[in-house]
Amino acid sequence: MDRRKFIQLASSASAALVLAKLATANAAEAKPANIETGANADEKQHLDAMNKYAELTGGDKLVIAMLIYPGMFLQDLVGPLTVFESLMNRDIHLVWKNLDVVGNENPAQTKLIPVRPTTTFKDCPKNLDVLFVPGGVPGTLTMMEDPEVLTFLAEQGKTAKYVTSVCTGSLILGAAGLLNGYKATSYWSSLPALAELGAIPTKSRVVVDRNRVTGGGVTAGIDFGLKLVALLRNENYAKAVQLYLEYNPEPPFNAGSPETAPAMVTQFLNDMFAGINEASIQTAKRAKKRLRG
Amino acid sequence: MDRRKFIQLASSASAALVLAKLATANAAEAKPANIETGANADEKQHLDAMNKYAELTGGDKLVIAMLIYPGMFLQDLVGPLTVFESLMNRDIHLVWKNLDVVGNENPAQTKLIPVRPTTTFKDCPKNLDVLFVPGGVPGTLTMMEDPEVLTFLAEQGKTAKYVTSVCTGSLILGAAGLLNGYKATSYWSSLPALAELGAIPTKSRVVVDRNRVTGGGVTAGIDFGLKLVALLRNENYAKAVQLYLEYNPEPPFNAGSPETAPAMVTQFLNDMFAGINEASIQTAKRAKKRLRG
Repeated sequence: MDRRKFIQLASSASAALVLAKLATANAAEAKPANIETGANADEKQHLDAMNKYAELTGGDKLVIAMLIYPGMFLQDLVGPLTVFESLMNRDIHLVWKNLDVVGNENPAQTKLIPVRPTTTFKDCPKNLDVLFVPGGVPGTLTMMEDPEVLTFLAEQGKTAKYVTSVCTGSLILGAAGLLNGYKATSYWSSLPALAELGAIPTKSRVVVDRNRVTGGGVTAGIDFGLKLVALLRNENYAKAVQLYLEYNPEPPFNAGSPETAPAMVTQFLNDMFAGINEASIQTAKRAKKRLRG
Repeated sequence: MDRRKFIQLASSASAALVLAKLATANAAEAKPANIETGANADEKQHLDAMNKYAELTGGDKLVIAMLIYPGMFLQDLVGPLTVFESLMNRDIHLVWKNLDVVGNENPAQTKLIPVRPTTTFKDCPKNLDVLFVPGGVPGTLTMMEDPEVLTFLAEQGKTAKYVTSVCTGSLILGAAGLLNGYKATSYWSSLPALAELGAIPTKSRVVVDRNRVTGGGVTAGIDFGLKLVALLRNENYAKAVQLYLEYNPEPPFNAGSPETAPAMVTQFLNDMFAGINEASIQTAKRAKKRLRG
């Protein structure tokens, strides 16, 4: 098997891992292969290669919409996005009310990497495979009371194959009425607010309940993404993405949860989050009231 | 201890965890506290709180420069950036030749999230605390032969307190002559190219050799960042950042290294990377020759 030819083929297929495309861009003799004609021995060989790895490359087109908003936390978005971009045969949309850049709207909160939406609520495809919401404060609280955002999520949530979030994104899903009676998780200090929204707060890195898939805080986005890929494609496909992203974590310390961090560290963050936690709970209570009313 | 007052104080100090600032922005009665006068009992109480958590909040101003470039891998940058942004009292610069947006220069490689530099090679501060290089192909190979980039890194590398990278960023550091005789790591399939650059390839999630700190592929950026925070500040500080980012990873599968992934998965990626790996080795050989010449 000529490896370079395989790379050409993989990248010329409509579905190709990002890196395969990039590898091809650098291959000296790269030229478009034609997977459809299969007219000669070379192409036959290429088709064999694709068949060999069909489990890791196949699957219908996936349509993924990721909500972006002012005050979101960039890593909450980029972790899952990195996983989704590693998939073949997918369209990813970054969705907001309009096409204005998100993330530098407030001089006091200027982010180093603002994000531009690729489409609007109005133009976003329907019948999504994945509807995703990242976390972030205080953006989360604002979104929990934004009728335009809540209507968009509630509508898309009716037909999306998977309704998903990372970190405090689950508070927004909850405020849109999408987690009522579902087990779900959130950022570790936001679980009390989640409870106010009718969800069943569940302490776990990734929680799957029927078609709701929610991840814990910030860095849980990679765990979440891989779990979702296993559901959308298959387990070996998710393992290929895991190796592609070399997701073999080795935290230098064991302080990633309030139970394992030194008491002083947990106390420090509890002190710091006290105000925002109280505001989250009050916002969640108002949201619940609206949903009932 | 009045928690809301503590939040106000933490956020009014020049150094504040990002979330503390955001929490304050949402606190109803938020108003600027004045840490310097300490004229009344309230302010005395605030100062006590800062002293209580001095280990988690103190430290001199850190100046961090992160190279960005066309063809970089976004998560390689955003992982460490997320950790660095969690620090108090730091300036972070995204550095490139000019101020043009990086990441949408080639229609065939349009990224969903392009990144705008905040400063140029020429205007970048000297005597950095951290010089950082992310990975990415084929951008990595192009940077390994770009005289302007290599000169910038070689110059800053002479005086930077820590010279660092994630993923294939170490190939660029190596091409700039900064890893000769140093233990270092890279993306799992790029270790052979790293060897060509005079580095001592070391299979480890994060490798520290004197002031060189290199991380493994893509997702290693969080492990790398926390390790570096422990060096720059202290271990408890790093643990506070770890809890802040809820870095308590639970990969759903054990496929994050070529040794633990299913054989078919490793073979698939080896096939796909064959071309780029060969190109990396050849580029590394040319770089080594130039460094000797």
